Amino acid sequence: MIEEKLASLGFSIPQAPRPVGSYVPVIRSGRLIFVSGQIPLIENSITLPEKYIGKIPDTVSIELGKEAAKICVINCLSHIKSLLGDLDLLERVIKLTGYVNCGPDFTEHPKIINGASDFLLEIFGEKGKHTRVAIGAISLPLGSAVEIDFLCEVKSEK
Amino acid sequence: MIEEKLASLGFSIPQAPRPVGSYVPVIRSGRLIFVSGQIPLIENSITLPEKYIGKIPDTVSIELGKEAAKICVINCLSHIKSLLGDLDLLERVIKLTGYVNCGPDFTEHPKIINGASDFLLEIFGEKGKHTRVAIGAISLPLGSAVEIDFLCEVKSEK
Amino acid sequence: MIEEKLASLGFSIPQAPRPVGSYVPVIRSGRLIFVSGQIPLIENSITLPEKYIGKIPDTVSIELGKEAAKICVINCLSHIKSLLGDLDLLERVIKLTGYVNCGPDFTEHPKIINGASDFLLEIFGEKGKHTRVAIGAISLPLGSAVEIDFLCEVKSEK
Repeated sequence: MIEEKLASLGFSIPQAPRPVGSYVPVIRSGRLIFVSGQIPLIENSITLPEKYIGKIPDTVSIELGKEAAKICVINCLSHIKSLLGDLDLLERVIKLTGYVNCGPDFTEHPKIINGASDFLLEIFGEKGKHTRVAIGAISLPLGSAVEIDFLCEVKSEK
Repeated sequence: MIEEKLASLGFSIPQAPRPVGSYVPVIRSGRLIFVSGQIPLIENSITLPEKYIGKIPDTVSIELGKEAAKICVINCLSHIKSLLGDLDLLERVIKLTGYVNCGPDFTEHPKIINGASDFLLEIFGEKGKHTRVAIGAISLPLGSAVEIDFLCEVKSEK
Repeated sequence: MIEEKLASLGFSIPQAPRPVGSYVPVIRSGRLIFVSGQIPLIENSITLPEKYIGKIPDTVSIELGKEAAKICVINCLSHIKSLLGDLDLLERVIKLTGYVNCGPDFTEHPKIINGASDFLLEIFGEKGKHTRVAIGAISLPLGSAVEIDFLCEVKSEK
């Protein structure tokens, strides 16, 4: 059902991207699912698209930043699908931490991370409602404009 | 009892501030309560007080930064009260992550976030003892001088 | 067994460092163990070694940054040992968040935090595999080049 919803929004779940370091992408502990920080890598590529590299808003526009945040969500879901086999086993998203690669005077972090938050609401409806933290980072891995960290909850009976 | 303690310290729990993005302020998963990142918004205002906007220590003093951190705690408690109805149902504070809006040479992040930590100890005593992370952020939402993220635990029988 | 493994790698668990603020170093909630942000303090000293102070890679080299990340792991383990008495009671490491003190053009955060991640794999094998977030911080407490935040899981029967 969640994948049908994604398809109706024009998205599909790609092969999960490989971590860019010596760690694993996803771990379940009890009903909690921890997902490693996601950057907007496309379809298991290990190179970031040029348009998502640099500081928001000077090098990467607000709009592209929001798009990058959306791709982070897709990547997160690809890891959860790898783990659970079926995204419908997700009970809900609990928390999202959004890091925005920006300068000292930037104040619109919420606008960028709304790219991810709004997308989660579109996909999951009520179950996509999450708590959130958004902050500015002096720099991010591979120069990414955005990095997003997720915590989800799996349905109790699974 | 917690609200009486707060009153004795000269504080009351205000109406909870609205999130500055498309997310929810608080979620409970099992006994854990996740609270979204709090900035020093006053009494459900959507505008930050000017004195809490900018970098510590140049634009916002260490003292005002500590005060801002205290207001973040109050806002956090307002969300938990909205969720649980009664702050006495809190078992304890588990973790606090403090983001300080500052420059590259700042080293006194612990002093700022102690504003929040000391306040939690004053309010909750032993139950207010928490683990903590404090870091510097290049910038924060709305230009806030401080942002604080909370994880608490609710009493088991509730 | 874990301490023997550490000894074979040339390390021992020191006395746990004191927190640099008004918080506690470690809290257990259910099977989860939350550890406060660790910086590369040595053997309960309250002063950071000069070589681990400053920005990576200009003031502190990539190699020293990785070494600092390793010491953060040792400090984390010292706190967990204080709590559990025995590191063999750890089921696994769940999540590690790595903050790198660096400039706006730095992109090699994963390389630095691999210092911690690789070390956890060396010590714990499969149980050391964790999820991870790595970001750049404009500055860190005491000027530390690295700060690391840990979440672990204790064995169910304990």
